[in-house]
Amino acid sequence: MSKVFSIPIRIYYEDTDAGNVVYYANYLKFMERARTEWLRALGLELDEIARREGVIFAVRYARVDFIKPARFNDLLQATVELIKRGHASMTFAQRIQRESLTLCEGEVKVACLDTATLAPRAIPNHLVTHLDPGAST
Amino acid sequence: MSKVFSIPIRIYYEDTDAGNVVYYANYLKFMERARTEWLRALGLELDEIARREGVIFAVRYARVDFIKPARFNDLLQATVELIKRGHASMTFAQRIQRESLTLCEGEVKVACLDTATLAPRAIPNHLVTHLDPGAST
Amino acid sequence: MSKVFSIPIRIYYEDTDAGNVVYYANYLKFMERARTEWLRALGLELDEIARREGVIFAVRYARVDFIKPARFNDLLQATVELIKRGHASMTFAQRIQRESLTLCEGEVKVACLDTATLAPRAIPNHLVTHLDPGAST
Amino acid sequence: MSKVFSIPIRIYYEDTDAGNVVYYANYLKFMERARTEWLRALGLELDEIARREGVIFAVRYARVDFIKPARFNDLLQATVELIKRGHASMTFAQRIQRESLTLCEGEVKVACLDTATLAPRAIPNHLVTHLDPGAST
Repeated sequence: MSKVFSIPIRIYYEDTDAGNVVYYANYLKFMERARTEWLRALGLELDEIARREGVIFAVRYARVDFIKPARFNDLLQATVELIKRGHASMTFAQRIQRESLTLCEGEVKVACLDTATLAPRAIPNHLVTHLDPGAST
Repeated sequence: MSKVFSIPIRIYYEDTDAGNVVYYANYLKFMERARTEWLRALGLELDEIARREGVIFAVRYARVDFIKPARFNDLLQATVELIKRGHASMTFAQRIQRESLTLCEGEVKVACLDTATLAPRAIPNHLVTHLDPGAST
Repeated sequence: MSKVFSIPIRIYYEDTDAGNVVYYANYLKFMERARTEWLRALGLELDEIARREGVIFAVRYARVDFIKPARFNDLLQATVELIKRGHASMTFAQRIQRESLTLCEGEVKVACLDTATLAPRAIPNHLVTHLDPGAST
Repeated sequence: MSKVFSIPIRIYYEDTDAGNVVYYANYLKFMERARTEWLRALGLELDEIARREGVIFAVRYARVDFIKPARFNDLLQATVELIKRGHASMTFAQRIQRESLTLCEGEVKVACLDTATLAPRAIPNHLVTHLDPGAST
């Protein structure tokens, strides 16, 4: 009964660099796609949340170990697991794999912010019900 | 007495792809940087224009010939020349060169839009004074 | 009996800009993803082609009309249709749609190049069999 | 007598996202530009190093705190300081500032790799002479 959520990521030319590998900053994009799709799988759409609840989520901290390179045309998996839900933030463990090989792994902390002021805001109750790890599987 | 404006562009890893050349869509970014700096050189800052005049500029049409590749660490020139100023649009001839060699050249049409509605708007008079080719050199 | 091939494109934050719409140069990335998946659907993998045949494909020309903006979280369709197959090039009609609404449409010409020299090369016979419009549906 | 090296970074539309701020992964690009220009200021060009010495540098680890947002048209400073030079790696403290305000700060570890095999390699002596903190100011 795993709480790890995963999506496929196909590597296109746009993702690579002249070192003939995936440009390292792009793994952060893949991790974000995984977080977005994880929320969608929980029934939460970020554009609706912004409109209805007046909050957006912004990355406050990221730590990534780049272990092995990915290459053009690779089919990867981007995984996400909520490891801590705070009052106004969420922390995720994330990994990019090619089959069973981990290419990079990291931790990303996302803050809940007011759309207008960009000041921290408590995660709305309506979301908490969906996000609470105890309820998310 | 040329009306062609030019800025230097240094190529970093972020700009390249696994073909060991600059990723073609990135030339459009370099062309936009040239347009932005050309406006700045005319005394026009796009963020101030958005706040004060309530208009933004959006690309409506682009045509680019990709002639020769650029590579990592190249120092290029991105040029811009206003070739037509319409009521609510501007059309630019643009070129990316490495020294005297043209790497790509194209044409970009930019529309003036209302910030809120994204509907077309006449270019504000205050800008026209700066933009009119007769006055821009 | 349509020859138009299409893939879904989900819009993430990485694709948008401060105008609150998709950054225009990114549509070229979506069009390339569609071309790559069209080839894959024909049984052609670009990394294998580079290794076995010693050729890569590079964009030589692109023309795009940006008609309506896409926004964060939109689910789009990117379509591709081979409209001309030359000796050493292919020309595609491409479109980005949100449901039945066309957001942008354009034409992209791709050249077949030698991997090592980047000089033009005839499209290998093995590929032509797959690519010929008469055989591609 | 500071060992901190700094370059200006202008924010263009390409750097922003629909949150109306700079897309967080792009700060990693700005940090890389600063490292590349720091090397250039020391007389080291990465393309020449790849050709002559057969080594490239790849990011192995990055940690970034995103503190305050940057916006379209901001003029930032990206700073870099070599804080540890290992046998086959370098670790940098990096910061992005708008005037005296720190927008993000982090640490980036870069490994020296063989161009062909991507296996770790000792930093060539010729580079060490330039890189040694004792000699770098």
